[in-house]
Amino acid sequence: NLPKTFRTFSSTPLKCDAFSPLDTFPQRHNGSSDAEIKAMLDTIGVKDMEELVNKTIPANIRSTQALALEGGLTESELLKRLGDIASKNKVYKSYIGMGYTNTIVPSVILRNILESPGWYTQYTPYQPEISQGRLESLLNFQTMVTDLTSMDIANASLLDEGTAAAEAMLISFSAGKQKRHTFFVDEKCHPQTIACLQTRAEGFGINVIIGDVLKYEFENKHPNDLAGVLVQYPATDGSINDYSDLSTKIHSLGGQVVCATDLMALSLLTPPGEWGADIALGNSQRFGVPLGYGGPHAAFFACKDQHKRRMPGRLVGVSRDANGNKAYRLSLQTREQHIRREKATSNICTAQALLANMSAMYAIYHGPEGIIAIAKRIHTLTNALAEEIKQMGYSIKNDAFFDTLNVHIENGADDIIRKAAAANINFRKVDNNTVGITLDEAVIKQDVLEIIQIFSKDSYKNSDLQPANKAAIPQKFIRTSPFMQHQVFNSHHSETEMLRYIYYLQSRDLSLVHSMIPLGSCTMKLNATTEMIPITWPEFANMHPFVPDNQAEGYKILINELEKDLAIITGFDGISLQPNSGAQGEYTGLRVIGAYHKSRGDDKRNVCLIPVSAHGTNPASAAMAGMEVVPVKCENNGDLDMKDLEEKATKYKDSLAAFMVTYPSTFGVFENGVVKACEIIHQNGGQVYMDGANLNAQIGLCTPADIGMDVCHLNLHKTFCIPHGGGGPGVGPIGVKSHLVPFLPGHPVVKTGGDKCIGPVAAAPFGSPDILPISWAYIKMMGGKGLTAATHLALLNANYMAIRLSNHYKILFTNQNGMCAHEFIIDIRPFQKTAGIEAIDIAKRLQDYGFHSPTMSWPVPNTLMIEPTESESKAELDRFCDAMISIREEISSIENGQQPIDNNVLTNSPHTIETLISTTWDKAYSREQAAFPMKILTTHKFWPSVGRLDDAFGDRNLICSCPPIEDYLE
Amino acid sequence: NLPKTFRTFSSTPLKCDAFSPLDTFPQRHNGSSDAEIKAMLDTIGVKDMEELVNKTIPANIRSTQALALEGGLTESELLKRLGDIASKNKVYKSYIGMGYTNTIVPSVILRNILESPGWYTQYTPYQPEISQGRLESLLNFQTMVTDLTSMDIANASLLDEGTAAAEAMLISFSAGKQKRHTFFVDEKCHPQTIACLQTRAEGFGINVIIGDVLKYEFENKHPNDLAGVLVQYPATDGSINDYSDLSTKIHSLGGQVVCATDLMALSLLTPPGEWGADIALGNSQRFGVPLGYGGPHAAFFACKDQHKRRMPGRLVGVSRDANGNKAYRLSLQTREQHIRREKATSNICTAQALLANMSAMYAIYHGPEGIIAIAKRIHTLTNALAEEIKQMGYSIKNDAFFDTLNVHIENGADDIIRKAAAANINFRKVDNNTVGITLDEAVIKQDVLEIIQIFSKDSYKNSDLQPANKAAIPQKFIRTSPFMQHQVFNSHHSETEMLRYIYYLQSRDLSLVHSMIPLGSCTMKLNATTEMIPITWPEFANMHPFVPDNQAEGYKILINELEKDLAIITGFDGISLQPNSGAQGEYTGLRVIGAYHKSRGDDKRNVCLIPVSAHGTNPASAAMAGMEVVPVKCENNGDLDMKDLEEKATKYKDSLAAFMVTYPSTFGVFENGVVKACEIIHQNGGQVYMDGANLNAQIGLCTPADIGMDVCHLNLHKTFCIPHGGGGPGVGPIGVKSHLVPFLPGHPVVKTGGDKCIGPVAAAPFGSPDILPISWAYIKMMGGKGLTAATHLALLNANYMAIRLSNHYKILFTNQNGMCAHEFIIDIRPFQKTAGIEAIDIAKRLQDYGFHSPTMSWPVPNTLMIEPTESESKAELDRFCDAMISIREEISSIENGQQPIDNNVLTNSPHTIETLISTTWDKAYSREQAAFPMKILTTHKFWPSVGRLDDAFGDRNLICSCPPIEDYLE
Ligand SMILES: Cc1ncc(COP(=O)(O)O)c(C=O)c1O
Ligand SMILES: Cc1ncc(COP(=O)(O)O)c(C=O)c1O
Ligand SMILES: O=C([O-])O
Repeated sequence: NLPKTFRTFSSTPLKCDAFSPLDTFPQRHNGSSDAEIKAMLDTIGVKDMEELVNKTIPANIRSTQALALEGGLTESELLKRLGDIASKNKVYKSYIGMGYTNTIVPSVILRNILESPGWYTQYTPYQPEISQGRLESLLNFQTMVTDLTSMDIANASLLDEGTAAAEAMLISFSAGKQKRHTFFVDEKCHPQTIACLQTRAEGFGINVIIGDVLKYEFENKHPNDLAGVLVQYPATDGSINDYSDLSTKIHSLGGQVVCATDLMALSLLTPPGEWGADIALGNSQRFGVPLGYGGPHAAFFACKDQHKRRMPGRLVGVSRDANGNKAYRLSLQTREQHIRREKATSNICTAQALLANMSAMYAIYHGPEGIIAIAKRIHTLTNALAEEIKQMGYSIKNDAFFDTLNVHIENGADDIIRKAAAANINFRKVDNNTVGITLDEAVIKQDVLEIIQIFSKDSYKNSDLQPANKAAIPQKFIRTSPFMQHQVFNSHHSETEMLRYIYYLQSRDLSLVHSMIPLGSCTMKLNATTEMIPITWPEFANMHPFVPDNQAEGYKILINELEKDLAIITGFDGISLQPNSGAQGEYTGLRVIGAYHKSRGDDKRNVCLIPVSAHGTNPASAAMAGMEVVPVKCENNGDLDMKDLEEKATKYKDSLAAFMVTYPSTFGVFENGVVKACEIIHQNGGQVYMDGANLNAQIGLCTPADIGMDVCHLNLHKTFCIPHGGGGPGVGPIGVKSHLVPFLPGHPVVKTGGDKCIGPVAAAPFGSPDILPISWAYIKMMGGKGLTAATHLALLNANYMAIRLSNHYKILFTNQNGMCAHEFIIDIRPFQKTAGIEAIDIAKRLQDYGFHSPTMSWPVPNTLMIEPTESESKAELDRFCDAMISIREEISSIENGQQPIDNNVLTNSPHTIETLISTTWDKAYSREQAAFPMKILTTHKFWPSVGRLDDAFGDRNLICSCPPIEDYLE
Repeated sequence: NLPKTFRTFSSTPLKCDAFSPLDTFPQRHNGSSDAEIKAMLDTIGVKDMEELVNKTIPANIRSTQALALEGGLTESELLKRLGDIASKNKVYKSYIGMGYTNTIVPSVILRNILESPGWYTQYTPYQPEISQGRLESLLNFQTMVTDLTSMDIANASLLDEGTAAAEAMLISFSAGKQKRHTFFVDEKCHPQTIACLQTRAEGFGINVIIGDVLKYEFENKHPNDLAGVLVQYPATDGSINDYSDLSTKIHSLGGQVVCATDLMALSLLTPPGEWGADIALGNSQRFGVPLGYGGPHAAFFACKDQHKRRMPGRLVGVSRDANGNKAYRLSLQTREQHIRREKATSNICTAQALLANMSAMYAIYHGPEGIIAIAKRIHTLTNALAEEIKQMGYSIKNDAFFDTLNVHIENGADDIIRKAAAANINFRKVDNNTVGITLDEAVIKQDVLEIIQIFSKDSYKNSDLQPANKAAIPQKFIRTSPFMQHQVFNSHHSETEMLRYIYYLQSRDLSLVHSMIPLGSCTMKLNATTEMIPITWPEFANMHPFVPDNQAEGYKILINELEKDLAIITGFDGISLQPNSGAQGEYTGLRVIGAYHKSRGDDKRNVCLIPVSAHGTNPASAAMAGMEVVPVKCENNGDLDMKDLEEKATKYKDSLAAFMVTYPSTFGVFENGVVKACEIIHQNGGQVYMDGANLNAQIGLCTPADIGMDVCHLNLHKTFCIPHGGGGPGVGPIGVKSHLVPFLPGHPVVKTGGDKCIGPVAAAPFGSPDILPISWAYIKMMGGKGLTAATHLALLNANYMAIRLSNHYKILFTNQNGMCAHEFIIDIRPFQKTAGIEAIDIAKRLQDYGFHSPTMSWPVPNTLMIEPTESESKAELDRFCDAMISIREEISSIENGQQPIDNNVLTNSPHTIETLISTTWDKAYSREQAAFPMKILTTHKFWPSVGRLDDAFGDRNLICSCPPIEDYLE
């Protein structure tokens, strides 16, 4: 009478090879047991996975071979292997600067944000009622940026300084009534910034001029066509220049002044907003975010009020909830690509939320005085170093500086660089005669003495370092205005207070630690701990992006292996890991296609066909790549309208550059026509771009290359387990067929890309290398079999839920066999008439059930798109289905008049504790019905911290920095 | 018009040396800023810290010199220095066994329990309503243990296997009506277990006989005096022996059968409960807890129902709350030392909760099938290894085995050990002819091949390993009964499910991440992240306790430095880090005193004077050390009754062994008489033992040695930042004056202690080394100045709160200047008459305010003892005071009749969400008053997850393992 599940030693044979290790990963990543899988297959009515796949994926694209990846490593093997790789990175002391410096990451922030699944598994805060914690944190980030830059408004991060500069150029370009086509870039900007900007300028036909901004005769040369100028403050050579007269001049010519800057320096320097800049941007990395060989870090972006509706990226604002309480939300979403599509200000979607949070926390932990003290010390050390270097007979090219010296050494740069390398030190080689040295908060006196040793000509006496007599920042640059005066920056300076603030915010945010986040198109799967552990190892975390190759051998192995594995998985011939998000991948892929056409003399090809169902980033990216977007219709059943496609392709046969398509489609279906569609495009001279957001439905079962795609981006933050971090980081590599490989993006500092490469699309050569171990580890631990099993489960889970819900909701799109892919859409439109209920009401009511809503009203208005992923267990799927079915019953109670149409448990949702326990209660439903519609909620419930947000109020009364503290206490 | 707090670069001079690093730690550890300190001094009415100290600490004990420790390291320096030390540990592959093996710690458990402040900063769950998460987890631990051992009941951990065996011996000793004085220990038990048991036996006059348990003639030799026997199953030599006939025989003689065992082996072997054992115990380390050079790990302890009231340690049980809902709590507390004092079953207080939680989570993650698979694989590898070794011509001494082989090599053990060391491998040297090899779940095939290589005589061919034909576990030992059938062990096998379960439990537990935990005598201060990070570094975590010294050089440096620093801090001449808790420190110190007396021929000295105000562990420890406890009275003002002390000391002049005293006193006062008291004791031939629980009030200001103490224990888990972990781990080192140094405890395997050492008091030579980096780091980062500043603040914070609360509550004890030390007691007794309110009602009501109660009814019944520690900010102290004052007003509303005496906001507290939103509400106060008595609670509130516990019900209906799942769903 032993229970079935119990197997004793003597009675059961071993399943696997008797000696094989047991800490295998697929069993942990994939959510359901064999028995549960069997039960789900039964519910769907298929006999096995094979039948499920056959009914789901068109026969003409199904792979005939198993995925050619090795078997998976166990979790222990993975950590050992990755440890070996990490040890091949040599972490020298890097004083290279160029926008990247060492930083001391406060341990309390490292452990409780970057290493905490409560923070890193959050989604972008589109459901504000269950995201108040990170919204507050991002508002802190914005406040810190507006304060330090002295600008009116700041967003909640961009991808990096290079692309932020490109975005600023585009604002300048579109700011006036008439487009102005010249953009001037000071030669003293970081080279990677200039290069990113040049790449981006091409798509828009902007003429970028590089020169000495203080000498250039703008009035004569561009009386009417100057969009703006970009300056770096302090400049890449360390100098601090006065741009106030310049600003006056540029403004008088109708141009914008854009300033790339450094938050640390701004604690001491007159901020750009005080000398006339219209836009300020930069990298917030040195505020407590590891170097990570180039990323991820959060770029900041701030501007004058008049540009706020043109400002790219996510913007957190203060609004109020249904009860009139203050509440945070994403503001002005009408600017974003998901609304404005090809007319959007930018294609940015995923940004760098997690890193922005880290930087904001760093500012909070130190407070204004702490930041000033750090900046002063950096300057004091730099200044003392400058004195010593001068005493040794060298000249420092820049008299005024904050943290960076350009040392003149006639024909001696290489020599010094070599001596430094021998002492495990990196300087910047500016040119043959110039060495750059940038100090940072991690530098100690001994480090400076070591630097001096390298420059010393005779045997150096380790004399004590002396502070210089006076600061090397001329008085006119000295900041006099306060910043970060809000209480949040002046309260949490002890570790205990900091820890509690972090946990307080976290307690207001729903994440994957609570329940499934079934967001269609977002693939919120497990971000496994073993994948996450290595990213904070010092060998990965503390490496400057521009170190010589031989110091980054570990990274090189990792990058090469990841590229190879992704090539196998997608069937492509080349991969670029440079793009920092899916949208950047799209942009990159389209630029590569453009370069390909051009290389063949085919330079009229600029039409991009995009189905109307496409994600907003697709048309936005196409526009940014300089293409004309031509929409392609869809059939009522969701399929591509093949007739329309063929007509358009033929019509634009001479100008057809590309067709962008998401596969399986954004409707969650493996369409049959896809191979045909690729053929049509190819026949008409176009290239096919696949948006790989839905790749999770394909791996091991079919490949984009075999289907006929020429390029595809992957979202490593969806399919390959990089966590969403509350809205970033992301990695959006592209894969391409062999004819496109030569065009993969290059980089001005570290060689990347093909021999006919387009310019860089990100500031760092390999984008965000510090998080690549995550995807690498996922692939290595899953192996070919594990990955294929994950895809099976992703399809199974979606179809299982679709079946369960189909008795209660209409499932919008399926294929001819009634199957969806890895996600599906349920129709909410009918309830508008019957009960006055819309998708948003169900989304909010789901919060009362402890769930994050599925994707709301995209790609079809007033629907919900559900994607379970393979990592969710059958139990969790059932719990979600039960909640949806219970909500359907609640809708019925409106339909049948038990609850009024305008004051019911759905329209009033979500219900906060505060509302539920208020003495007055005048609803047609009980408090208990509101709070605990399912029994399990009495013990397992995540509570929304505010009531439903008033979106209109927030956009009408835009407040995008921390409101005065009295407001909280009112 | 710049705000005062804002200092610009030009206007302020640098405060510190311009080059000094800024990531200094004291500013992060200590909670208040200079301005806040000033405000608190003002409130108290003293002009500076010096005056505060002068008014608080008697002049005759104040140190005249600054603490002679170096200045503090910054956080970055600390991590670097500790990294260097760690790198001196050489982590070989250790197959030494003896109760410690390698294990694969699941990453999800490592990161989210051991590395999570949400878990490690919890206190012991004495406030069950805000501790349901860890109570559930500990119940899982108990269930896992009872299931695997097949015993009736298990506790929620003991300190280690050695002391657990000693506890079992004591149960055997006290089980019968008449004491039986013989305890037999099988020679095949682990040597450190035997030694711990011998140490403990001495205090009780138990006669320990070591021999071959299967051959010994019990009937003839001990027909009436056999308390019990201890066997090891499997034995230390790896053999598996049949003890069923033995059990029958021992039972017939009236003795108890105690079995030290291995949970992993028990998944395959007939459990002790099925062949007759009365008690089963062991180390749960191999269930996912790092080796850590010996600890901390959780020992398990299970017994038959008849012993349950004698069982030592904490026991979680299922009861119900005020609303009749199921709720967990600590059961049968009447067994514990804080109630029974010298008559307690044991002195254990702090145990190993955090590690027990890890082991339980490991069992949950793997489930019964997973555990069996792991055990099978270990056995299969061991078996294959045995075959190879036999084929090479060696003999294996034990035919039957699970994971351990004893290989016979005539005169060749040293040679093999040497060869192994050369290959970075450790075996156990059993004797000159015998080598022990124990395999574990981390072993892979390649490891076994390497082991074979060492034994191979000729050049070895790396042939493939073959599984043996049959198991080396004879059929009669094969387990047939199921275990861990409860749903909790069969649900959370995917990482996502595991993660959510961990977070679900965590969400029910208040910890330092939420608010201050002002528990008098417990010193709940910051457990800083930088202190915690190193403990999971592999160089510290993965080291076996019995490796040769030259592999543990990093640990040796750490241990030596920590001992030296603690000696400086306390003024003592020698330190032993072996005791695993404060109570163990007490026991050790008293044993050392006893050995000292004996060494001088003074062997009648066995009286221990203990003030009536002492902590329960004091008399319990004295009793365990074989001493007779004589209580000393206290005056009404809380001071020692010096007259009584002198009388008793004189009366027992010839038998006086020791006086135990807590200083500052358990009443929170620096008594003036302490120097005098020490003199009196010394004059009468006694030694003075200081309970160092309150050392946080002394560091840098006075030292136990100067005061006149001979011995003192420190609680590293109080004063030196080791987190409480929800009830352990702890470290309770003792410091002693030079005359006692020779008696510090030794160890049978690794040399420790003095040349006249007492036996070991813990299984591992250095207790729990893996957590020593925490205290080491704290001292190194604080430096002498920082530590002294912390003490200042601890005194300041307590006196500030006492002043604020003194207008509302009576403060019980202060010194002649009206000052308390680092904690103080408020009197609740008056409210019993005026409002029917007792300390417990305030404790529970504080939960509604988001706070953990202060220490309740100890050392004075119906009082609350408040200890803020230095890490709390003034803001937090004020928030707590505000809550207490608000509660006082609520009491007034009962006193003045606004609320009834038996149904008011205090007696009904804590209020759960479920209660508050129930439709019916018939209280004299509103729902809002219950939930949000202060405005800040509407945004910042921790909710109790159950209503007030029904303690009596739980003890009457004792259930100490997971209740059937239907109960939850009823
Ligand atoms: C179909 C599709 N394409 C593109 C993107 C943009 O990717 P990213 O947010 O990484 O820029 C998304 C993001 O959700 C998407 O769902
Ligand atoms: C005064 C006093 N002595 C001894 C102890 C026992 O210490 P431990 O719990 O570490 O065994 C405590 C614990 O709270 C205590 O407060
Ligand atoms: O981020 C989204 O576009 O859903």
